[in-house]
Amino acid sequence: MSLPKGKNNCITDIEGVKVGHVTLYEKVDEETTICTGVTAILPHSGNLFREKNAAGSSVINGFGKTTGLVQLEELGLLESPIMLTNTFSVGAVTEGTLKYMLEQTPEIGDTTGTINIVVGECNDGYLNSIRRQAIRPEHAIQAIEQAEAGPVEEGAVGAGKGMVCFGHKGGIGTASRTIIDKDGEFNLGCLVVSNFGNPEEARFADLTETNTDTPDGSIMMVLATDAPLSDRQLKRLSKRCAAGLGRTGSHIAHGSGDIAVAFSTASTYPHQSNSLTETREFIRDEHPIMNRLFQAVVETTEEAVIRSLQQAETTEGRKGRVVKKAPF
Amino acid sequence: MSLPKGKNNCITDIEGVKVGHVTLYEKVDEETTICTGVTAILPHSGNLFREKNAAGSSVINGFGKTTGLVQLEELGLLESPIMLTNTFSVGAVTEGTLKYMLEQTPEIGDTTGTINIVVGECNDGYLNSIRRQAIRPEHAIQAIEQAEAGPVEEGAVGAGKGMVCFGHKGGIGTASRTIIDKDGEFNLGCLVVSNFGNPEEARFADLTETNTDTPDGSIMMVLATDAPLSDRQLKRLSKRCAAGLGRTGSHIAHGSGDIAVAFSTASTYPHQSNSLTETREFIRDEHPIMNRLFQAVVETTEEAVIRSLQQAETTEGRKGRVVKKAPF
Amino acid sequence: MSLPKGKNNCITDIEGVKVGHVTLYEKVDEETTICTGVTAILPHSGNLFREKNAAGSSVINGFGKTTGLVQLEELGLLESPIMLTNTFSVGAVTEGTLKYMLEQTPEIGDTTGTINIVVGECNDGYLNSIRRQAIRPEHAIQAIEQAEAGPVEEGAVGAGKGMVCFGHKGGIGTASRTIIDKDGEFNLGCLVVSNFGNPEEARFADLTETNTDTPDGSIMMVLATDAPLSDRQLKRLSKRCAAGLGRTGSHIAHGSGDIAVAFSTASTYPHQSNSLTETREFIRDEHPIMNRLFQAVVETTEEAVIRSLQQAETTEGRKGRVVKKAPF
Amino acid sequence: MSLPKGKNNCITDIEGVKVGHVTLYEKVDEETTICTGVTAILPHSGNLFREKNAAGSSVINGFGKTTGLVQLEELGLLESPIMLTNTFSVGAVTEGTLKYMLEQTPEIGDTTGTINIVVGECNDGYLNSIRRQAIRPEHAIQAIEQAEAGPVEEGAVGAGKGMVCFGHKGGIGTASRTIIDKDGEFNLGCLVVSNFGNPEEARFADLTETNTDTPDGSIMMVLATDAPLSDRQLKRLSKRCAAGLGRTGSHIAHGSGDIAVAFSTASTYPHQSNSLTETREFIRDEHPIMNRLFQAVVETTEEAVIRSLQQAETTEGRKGRVVKKAPF
Repeated sequence: MSLPKGKNNCITDIEGVKVGHVTLYEKVDEETTICTGVTAILPHSGNLFREKNAAGSSVINGFGKTTGLVQLEELGLLESPIMLTNTFSVGAVTEGTLKYMLEQTPEIGDTTGTINIVVGECNDGYLNSIRRQAIRPEHAIQAIEQAEAGPVEEGAVGAGKGMVCFGHKGGIGTASRTIIDKDGEFNLGCLVVSNFGNPEEARFADLTETNTDTPDGSIMMVLATDAPLSDRQLKRLSKRCAAGLGRTGSHIAHGSGDIAVAFSTASTYPHQSNSLTETREFIRDEHPIMNRLFQAVVETTEEAVIRSLQQAETTEGRKGRVVKKAPF
Repeated sequence: MSLPKGKNNCITDIEGVKVGHVTLYEKVDEETTICTGVTAILPHSGNLFREKNAAGSSVINGFGKTTGLVQLEELGLLESPIMLTNTFSVGAVTEGTLKYMLEQTPEIGDTTGTINIVVGECNDGYLNSIRRQAIRPEHAIQAIEQAEAGPVEEGAVGAGKGMVCFGHKGGIGTASRTIIDKDGEFNLGCLVVSNFGNPEEARFADLTETNTDTPDGSIMMVLATDAPLSDRQLKRLSKRCAAGLGRTGSHIAHGSGDIAVAFSTASTYPHQSNSLTETREFIRDEHPIMNRLFQAVVETTEEAVIRSLQQAETTEGRKGRVVKKAPF
Repeated sequence: MSLPKGKNNCITDIEGVKVGHVTLYEKVDEETTICTGVTAILPHSGNLFREKNAAGSSVINGFGKTTGLVQLEELGLLESPIMLTNTFSVGAVTEGTLKYMLEQTPEIGDTTGTINIVVGECNDGYLNSIRRQAIRPEHAIQAIEQAEAGPVEEGAVGAGKGMVCFGHKGGIGTASRTIIDKDGEFNLGCLVVSNFGNPEEARFADLTETNTDTPDGSIMMVLATDAPLSDRQLKRLSKRCAAGLGRTGSHIAHGSGDIAVAFSTASTYPHQSNSLTETREFIRDEHPIMNRLFQAVVETTEEAVIRSLQQAETTEGRKGRVVKKAPF
Repeated sequence: MSLPKGKNNCITDIEGVKVGHVTLYEKVDEETTICTGVTAILPHSGNLFREKNAAGSSVINGFGKTTGLVQLEELGLLESPIMLTNTFSVGAVTEGTLKYMLEQTPEIGDTTGTINIVVGECNDGYLNSIRRQAIRPEHAIQAIEQAEAGPVEEGAVGAGKGMVCFGHKGGIGTASRTIIDKDGEFNLGCLVVSNFGNPEEARFADLTETNTDTPDGSIMMVLATDAPLSDRQLKRLSKRCAAGLGRTGSHIAHGSGDIAVAFSTASTYPHQSNSLTETREFIRDEHPIMNRLFQAVVETTEEAVIRSLQQAETTEGRKGRVVKKAPF
């Protein structure tokens, strides 16, 4: 039995979470098309460095260039927006996000330490002239500044603009679930950038008629929940994305960077404090709600992928290549 | 498009691989039933310590007591049979397997170092009076000695005797695939002990009518292939089992020890050698065959679970509990 | 500046921690000597399954057969004594410890789930006729039952009876440190079974005159602290043991299983609870006390190794082999 | 007994390895000083993407922003120079290095896939006005183009320009060892950017008189060897850096990103190939040379840290802060 969907069936159903897209599209010449973007996911509306979120991650397949996971794993904390973009723009998006955070937070790199920026990516080079490195630091800043709550635009938008999934136009997809239990109500949302899969593998629709020469891609998966979970528990959540991928038909291809990051908004962790200790409340691992959260991860990962196809429009990219909307 | 099945659709389709079961079943009294066993998987028929196999593993969910993975991960080698049993018999099976290997190999612990035994487990305590610790070291030895090539007995047998899956009788299941490419032909097989899942989650059959009070269980997954792969590549294979689990309907429950071990029979690694170096041939990661191997992992994991249900008979266990054959 | 030592400079300086040894020694014939043992470390005096401790671990080099780390890492909890013994007795000690815990806890494997036993080991096969598997389950039970607070017997005792370190008699060693801060006072202790190192590498004494043909060994390191730390933080502690090993002169040899397990006694985690959540207080990672705890790990690891040599007596083992007390 | 030093006692003693520095120093105003740089380490002189090197890494403490490790770990390959810089310049250095590689390799992101750039960092914000982000992409390109074989400039140069170690001026340090065995001769070199440690901890010199208010820093460690090793074996090498750090006096502080990357120059791995398989020769793990390589890692890590202090000159940075040359 599936869990009930959240209010908007979006990652933004988790209170406080905001999503912003910047999309670039320009047909430069016969050979060259800029068809790419940036998507920013903000855990809350305050200063993300001063008030951090518990987080965990899982590298399901590591053919990817995601940055920021080393520190996120060591400290179990997220202290920046999660940024998504194309593979060759990780540097520019890191720079832009850093610039934004430095402006918001004068003490970073002056009276306090450094900041860890998390940037995920997929390779949109089939449609996008990725070698052009069209994304600049200001696009990252813009995506952060435009982030908002409420329904999320999906499909060929933001970081999803140039992505291809199961031979059809993919990109941004999102879904959410609500868990109602006598002991409490919790929400979990997933947002993906889908860029993987061969048509003949799809299990959610018959795409065997699709002809394609698109290469192995990747998928970035971001999970948000308002359930009070520790970094270890959030890592457990992120590992379940692999089961959701399996349901779509993926075999987690060699060339695919399949990476999941999960955070909790239940409480924040102050950067500065005079206290020796911090007190936190976590769901007990063996409470049945934990299994419902796991189920929510699997369901929203699968559905977010499907929605990324459903919401995406046929898109023309470099070299005149056209990737069609999925026929379902 | 699914890959073609191997000759017997069994892990033993990988040349040299042998499987042996020992099954214990005894209704002791009203409360107590011994309903358990041991299964041994041998990568080849020679001395497994003197001629080791490349191996890798993945802990998809670590609520489990599998032993031997620390060294297997450090050295990338398997040097014992892979033994499967119930949770409280890991000690006895380790002892028995060690005893067997010591008898075969007088130099271990005398003129050469120690041996690393791999034992996986699931908790069959719903049907089996697991506190009795009925499995003794000699049962492990017997399972090894009885191991044979050819079709594998599945269902409520060996380590699978007392296992429960999706509310029905589970246990041993196996499947295999053949990959035929212009550059070569390779085989991959999977054998599982299935002991997980709630009936309403099943995606391969409608089990929503099933009433059950069985707890979270576990699944052990063993992959064998004749493709020449490194330990790193075998670890990649083992990680794909999570996608196969997702297809069956699993959300990889909190209380489930979901653990995969993969080995290659393509060549062996001598324990003793006068050489400084060893030369090995590996499939290139980006060759399309690698993706077919990943696909084979996902397909055989899913199918082995389904077969473990199809092949299992209704079984009565402790406290008069009966777990029924799945209705499909 | 070194930190001040604890009251007895022992792991038992951490309140509630108890240590028990069982030592076997018997010259059977010219060739055969039983020269081995078991050591049990108990985090507290209550039922360890019903009241668990936060824990983390680190595999510095994985040429070892330690069991129980898979689940300890997944759940961040220790629910059994930490048992130490020789490599070929891990099975028997697992069985004995399980038997002890089952007797103490009738619900395990009946109305509740299974239990995860942690057993570490080193290879004492240079002195001990390890193939004899002289340790039986009852020796494990005895070690647990004999465990006590107060000064710990060190050297050639318990699991350390047959161990060799830097070419001299090693075995059990322990040390502790106290951290006094305006915000609180905390203690950290380390207990090792030392069985590694070549004499010419030693940095704490000049052992270059020592002749030896002893092979690569291992070291098990157990850390206890009363500081309130999460599983992630305890894992961080356990990783620092590598720096302590480096100070002794170790290069962390290929054939050495160098494994560390850390637990906190600051609070326990009930197995059963009707609550959805659990509330815990942890030291903030960036509080200076965390660095003092790291320092304490490095210092006590180094000192415990040195003490294991200082406290051990010349011991004769199988084949008439004699390992001498270190000359310092 | 220490191993013999290599020809120049530098990482460039490994044939083919080149190192290039770009150093920025400008006193902008009373408050602001640019005092930073970039260092590039090239495994060989060919196209690093087309001819990759086997590699492994270890995150000893993950308070760091190193990029590129996700893919390096998945595939066991290095396909870019290893770049070192300050924490806030990882984005710019990634961009510059990418630009350089794209120019050298027109097929990347066009007819073939993407490229994985490895950039390590330490926080030089005590001396350097790090918020200025003075490093631009072209500085990375310049460092790569200036890279050369032969003796390496050490101390306050390149990425080491603004670093502080044990309260004194640190930065770039390097050391190498030669292993001569009847079966072959191999070399191993280490290059570090040192930026960690409190003076009172130093074990290589008495620095207890040093007054300092410098914060926790980091250390990046790069290992190169001409020994034929697999990715797994190179990871084993990288883990031994922790023991070398312990010898210097480090307790691997909370705020320190202590990260090691190791590569082998013994053979390269072509990006494109028509072959199904690849054949490689590796040193056997249990050959004594492996322990000598481990020893070389520990020794060169320790010595590279010491040399980074010995070779560095007193440096004035932002806010008039002066960090003095170490008194030994």
